[in-house]
Amino acid sequence: MTNIISIFDTTLRDGTQGEGISLSADDKLKIAQKLDALGVHYIEGGNPGSNSKDIEFFQRVKGLKLNAKITAFGSTRRKNSTAEQDSSLLRIVESGVPAATLVGKSWDFHVHTALQTTLEENLSMIYDSFAFLKRSGVEAIFDAEHFFDGYKHNPEYALAVLRQAQEAGADWIVLCDTNGGTLPTEIHEIISRVRAELTAPLGIHTHNDCELAVANTLAAVGAGVRQVQGTINGYGERCGNANLCSILPTLQLKMDYRCVSDEQLQALTGTARYISEIANVHMPVGQPYVGNAAFAHKGGIHVSAIMKDSKTYEHIRPELVGNKQRILVSELAGQSNIISKAQELGLDINANNEKTKAIMERIKELEHQGYQFEGADASLELLLRDAFGNVKDIFKLESFKMLVEKHNGHMNSEAIVKVNVDGQSVYTAAEGNGPVNALDNALRKALVQFYPKINDIHLSDYKVRVIDEKDATAGKVRVLIESTDFNNTWSTVGVSSNVIEASWEALVDSIRYALLGMTPVFSQDEPRERLGLVNH
Amino acid sequence: MTNIISIFDTTLRDGTQGEGISLSADDKLKIAQKLDALGVHYIEGGNPGSNSKDIEFFQRVKGLKLNAKITAFGSTRRKNSTAEQDSSLLRIVESGVPAATLVGKSWDFHVHTALQTTLEENLSMIYDSFAFLKRSGVEAIFDAEHFFDGYKHNPEYALAVLRQAQEAGADWIVLCDTNGGTLPTEIHEIISRVRAELTAPLGIHTHNDCELAVANTLAAVGAGVRQVQGTINGYGERCGNANLCSILPTLQLKMDYRCVSDEQLQALTGTARYISEIANVHMPVGQPYVGNAAFAHKGGIHVSAIMKDSKTYEHIRPELVGNKQRILVSELAGQSNIISKAQELGLDINANNEKTKAIMERIKELEHQGYQFEGADASLELLLRDAFGNVKDIFKLESFKMLVEKHNGHMNSEAIVKVNVDGQSVYTAAEGNGPVNALDNALRKALVQFYPKINDIHLSDYKVRVIDEKDATAGKVRVLIESTDFNNTWSTVGVSSNVIEASWEALVDSIRYALLGMTPVFSQDEPRERLGLVNH
Repeated sequence: MTNIISIFDTTLRDGTQGEGISLSADDKLKIAQKLDALGVHYIEGGNPGSNSKDIEFFQRVKGLKLNAKITAFGSTRRKNSTAEQDSSLLRIVESGVPAATLVGKSWDFHVHTALQTTLEENLSMIYDSFAFLKRSGVEAIFDAEHFFDGYKHNPEYALAVLRQAQEAGADWIVLCDTNGGTLPTEIHEIISRVRAELTAPLGIHTHNDCELAVANTLAAVGAGVRQVQGTINGYGERCGNANLCSILPTLQLKMDYRCVSDEQLQALTGTARYISEIANVHMPVGQPYVGNAAFAHKGGIHVSAIMKDSKTYEHIRPELVGNKQRILVSELAGQSNIISKAQELGLDINANNEKTKAIMERIKELEHQGYQFEGADASLELLLRDAFGNVKDIFKLESFKMLVEKHNGHMNSEAIVKVNVDGQSVYTAAEGNGPVNALDNALRKALVQFYPKINDIHLSDYKVRVIDEKDATAGKVRVLIESTDFNNTWSTVGVSSNVIEASWEALVDSIRYALLGMTPVFSQDEPRERLGLVNH
Repeated sequence: MTNIISIFDTTLRDGTQGEGISLSADDKLKIAQKLDALGVHYIEGGNPGSNSKDIEFFQRVKGLKLNAKITAFGSTRRKNSTAEQDSSLLRIVESGVPAATLVGKSWDFHVHTALQTTLEENLSMIYDSFAFLKRSGVEAIFDAEHFFDGYKHNPEYALAVLRQAQEAGADWIVLCDTNGGTLPTEIHEIISRVRAELTAPLGIHTHNDCELAVANTLAAVGAGVRQVQGTINGYGERCGNANLCSILPTLQLKMDYRCVSDEQLQALTGTARYISEIANVHMPVGQPYVGNAAFAHKGGIHVSAIMKDSKTYEHIRPELVGNKQRILVSELAGQSNIISKAQELGLDINANNEKTKAIMERIKELEHQGYQFEGADASLELLLRDAFGNVKDIFKLESFKMLVEKHNGHMNSEAIVKVNVDGQSVYTAAEGNGPVNALDNALRKALVQFYPKINDIHLSDYKVRVIDEKDATAGKVRVLIESTDFNNTWSTVGVSSNVIEASWEALVDSIRYALLGMTPVFSQDEPRERLGLVNH
């Protein structure tokens, strides 16, 4: 049997069924290009029979000349009708896609309850629809909905459904665990029985309702399946679909299957993060393989072992999937994390030094107040440099004032800042699209004459988090700001019970960091070199 | 073999190794009580040898008289020393816990690289430490760190390590997949071999680096392990530990094992959400079993099938784990979701009605602007009621003004509002602990004379999300506010490029909703009845 696994991505179709996910046609086209670069074999774009956005996508995607096969999604024909008269099937063929997936019922209960037709009519619906697609020259993939539940209740009927699709010429038969309730042992056993009955190549499509979608997919591949359906970051209905970001590296790095090239696999982390940005869904920090904490070390013992050999607490080299190692700073870490970070900055720090003890205490106290430096490397670096006295005082705030007004339905925001640069007092004001933007504008306006370079910096992300949720609007907030100057990205933090003050703090740190000409501690490409620096 | 699985919770120890998680002694005591109510058998509280917070926890937890065994965590004795002189082991015994877990090395590579000692000394460290614990009358659990990696590299040594612990009297031998890189098939095979060599009862401790921690735990139980270690919500180092919130219901509802009582299992969702609040970690909306979207239906076809029989798209009854079904509103859902929601409100809505079409269009347009009603039931209800003209006009905003000032390091926030209640204009001002709090205070101050009941309402959560992250501080933000009057909880949404205006919108919706005397659409206890309402 071949060890090549065909990867079928349904982020653009099943992924958009997830709560809070909504993609425009433009978004879908951007994502399709990223998926193609990652090397997936099929990109399911949507349902051309269901809405104008998807019709637009299928028209425009042709111009991109992707390597992946663009596929359309639809259902088997309506009951008591013909495939030739089914507007949804006609739309699929008209969309000009090389491949299409049709979902059909394989659980008798669903035929009765949801379709409300006879078992025989459902078989005809499947046969007719696939025969129609094949006559139209389209590669045809059958999604056998609820196959495992159906097989458990009525194995004869579930198999009869698959045989209909096979006889009508379906190129792939994909077994779906639609409700996500099946266990890996069941998946393996049922697929082994199906393989004895069918000749068509099989695929697997799982959902994560038991946190087993990845395991179920791997079990299916182990049982002989050769197409894997899933989504980037596991987006999808309810608890999501099988997460390709976990499946691809495990199949390829641990199970000797081939899905994409080694170079393409290194694009995995970037692809996952890009798509989470476009989909505007927060990526869990601990997401396997691609999360920001997937190779982050916090425990002090772990950190000291990692410095001796990263294999001690890393199951793969993070670079293989385009991720990187990080050392976190926190109260649990003892001193070794902070020391290793300071050493990278070339600061004279060691556990017996009084200055070192003082800065450790200061970090503990700030964390107690709600600061978190795990996600704010630049603020931590400023703190360490300030403690060791090697930071130039770029500017001093004397005062600021913010005014936000709503009158006759019209909003207005302005900020007035008074800063002191090298003994020179600058007093200026700016308007903005909201209060934080007004502050940002006023501060830049005050500084640009001294630091023209400030025009190269822009804020790329702004996050607000309520820390003490018990007190709601009177609680403390933590603001995280991510900034970029096109080459580098750095993050800063501010904490206050006042969202404006917290934003101001993070803003000031961001600009100080940039103007000092610092570069981020951890650059994307050289975690090895970094480790080398602190080897002892 | 018994079908009873002993549940060992390490949220308070390994869970706190997760990025962004930090728990005070008070937090730990609150969580311990919830875990005890859930019925876990062991609660690992921390490491009494490592910090004063954990020492305080172990002292105070005795007063709570919990059913679960409180356990302390530590390492085997230091190299080239004795157990009797090991301060960390002494602290464990002094803490008075009935049970303790000691981690020891079972991978020869780690003995050489991390411990930097001989294989023989490591065996002695394990034997001495367990003999010491047993002499001290403590139930002793051996965490065999990196056992699976160790077994793959040097099975003889890995087994010799386990035998040392067994001979010294360890009550449980727990096999750890510390780096999270092992596959379910490997777990099953290795444990089967271990069982042939040992008599002590076995446990399993997995990490989620391949998104397989749950599957690996289930595979281990299938191979004969009878203790499961994990954390609530899967918190833990890097990608986290095995998630007990997924393991408990799967073992108990799908695999015929017994972990806790059926009533305790119904506390699962509440426990998971409570702990995520205390830990201040956002719970992924699609978290299996306990997430807010775990039984949420968005696709139009799914929704119409769910209304016929919820088994069509739900793998278990959500009530079994204390969760509930939700119908989401979104552009994908076609009209059936909105119609079902409106019907529950008793509104005269149907697909052919002009008003219905208009409100559908309005919802689509608002979603396009960045509103999301999936997490803002109360705002959606107001929108639907407004459209059908059965909402009383409680008050009208004429204008507001916000002033935030920083001067001499001192912050000041004040809000001035002008509202009209029943033709009467009210003009008032208030200070606050930040701008949104000042607005909230001013609005309440203006309304309390007309609606004294407003004092019963308070805001329980306030979230800010940047929608268009490309524009950073100039981008749009979405504010979600959760409010409660002790009996009910409801959520509202506001969107603007100005965080103050977005907060104001959500605030106004929240207060309007409350003052109208409405109750939330979905009350926690009666999703069945709700479905009954719309059955047809």
